Amino acid sequence: MTGYFVSFEGPDGAGKSTVLKEVLAKIGSQLKPQYLVTREPGGSKIAEKIRDIILDPANDKMDAKTEALLYAAARSQHVEEIIKPALTAGKIVFSDRFVDSSLAYQGEGRDLGIKEVKQINDFATNKLDPDLTFFIDVAPEIGLSRIQKLRPGQEDRLEQENLSFHKKVYQGFLKVRAMYPERFVTIDGTQPIDQVVDQVIATLKQRMPEIF
Amino acid sequence: MTGYFVSFEGPDGAGKSTVLKEVLAKIGSQLKPQYLVTREPGGSKIAEKIRDIILDPANDKMDAKTEALLYAAARSQHVEEIIKPALTAGKIVFSDRFVDSSLAYQGEGRDLGIKEVKQINDFATNKLDPDLTFFIDVAPEIGLSRIQKLRPGQEDRLEQENLSFHKKVYQGFLKVRAMYPERFVTIDGTQPIDQVVDQVIATLKQRMPEIF
Repeated sequence: MTGYFVSFEGPDGAGKSTVLKEVLAKIGSQLKPQYLVTREPGGSKIAEKIRDIILDPANDKMDAKTEALLYAAARSQHVEEIIKPALTAGKIVFSDRFVDSSLAYQGEGRDLGIKEVKQINDFATNKLDPDLTFFIDVAPEIGLSRIQKLRPGQEDRLEQENLSFHKKVYQGFLKVRAMYPERFVTIDGTQPIDQVVDQVIATLKQRMPEIF
Repeated sequence: MTGYFVSFEGPDGAGKSTVLKEVLAKIGSQLKPQYLVTREPGGSKIAEKIRDIILDPANDKMDAKTEALLYAAARSQHVEEIIKPALTAGKIVFSDRFVDSSLAYQGEGRDLGIKEVKQINDFATNKLDPDLTFFIDVAPEIGLSRIQKLRPGQEDRLEQENLSFHKKVYQGFLKVRAMYPERFVTIDGTQPIDQVVDQVIATLKQRMPEIF
């Protein structure tokens, strides 16, 4: 595959979606290859149906393994239907979350084991890895309080988890970052948004000069 | 776990659901432990929602890996919420389909590999195996023509697959049966229903005398 695969990772409330939107508002028109913005869970019709089951707060009896398998199922569809065709066509794919989120949330946060969840996801994606991953770094306390201010009473099933879960997820991200030092770039997500956006753009220019 | 786990397997149209119903109509009142009849995909609220996505003919773009992961997700919920608590309480669980169906349909039918699909399901079920599996044996041609007569134009997404798919699934069942000769009992599903039912009951009496 000849395209470029860039993922954005981080705790809930890190500001990933906003950063991604602002980055593309600034540089989208300068990018040489066509680009595609997508998100997980979801990103395709079938995957969005799976997303609804995963995030619905009514499904509070969901087993951790079920959750991990549903994320992997949605991801497999997302890869086959959206990501792979785009990469094969030489496009840039920007994804709001990918496998690393499952390793952090289900592997570490739900205690299923990073290795075990990685195995399920290797099956789901045929071991597709991003070329570059931005880890938007904010402490779980900050991320959580942002979410609660942003949509009070409307948090999804994962966001509704308590601080101790989100702290474990954060530790999970640090472990995953240590596993893939070559593709992880950490950006301090507590900075003003303009600075975060500028650092992402500077990194893209440095690491993928050929896309500009 | 101190209960008894009995699964019914076979191609679409083998008559599993009918056989299971008739068997319990005949011997349900004689069984010493409490029993539970359940089915896959589904068997619990969350798992039934996943079932709807799996079987909906509208989801015709579903990737084979997505399908396998959705079956495993539904199964994991079914095991945790329904099967395990019942077995722990010493009950008999009769399930219309279990892991073996995924090995046959997704592993062999969809060419994902029986070993690969088994690994996903080991994660989903913590390697829970039935104590006894009835393979209701009918040729795929017969099973398929029964389904088409039974609900013409209303086949689900899997039933809608062509004969060559169902032939592969059937070969998959034969391979899975060869993997677990100790728990598989084959019943000729082309016999009159009363005979099928009587053979199932005779086998239960022979293999699990303590439940009567």
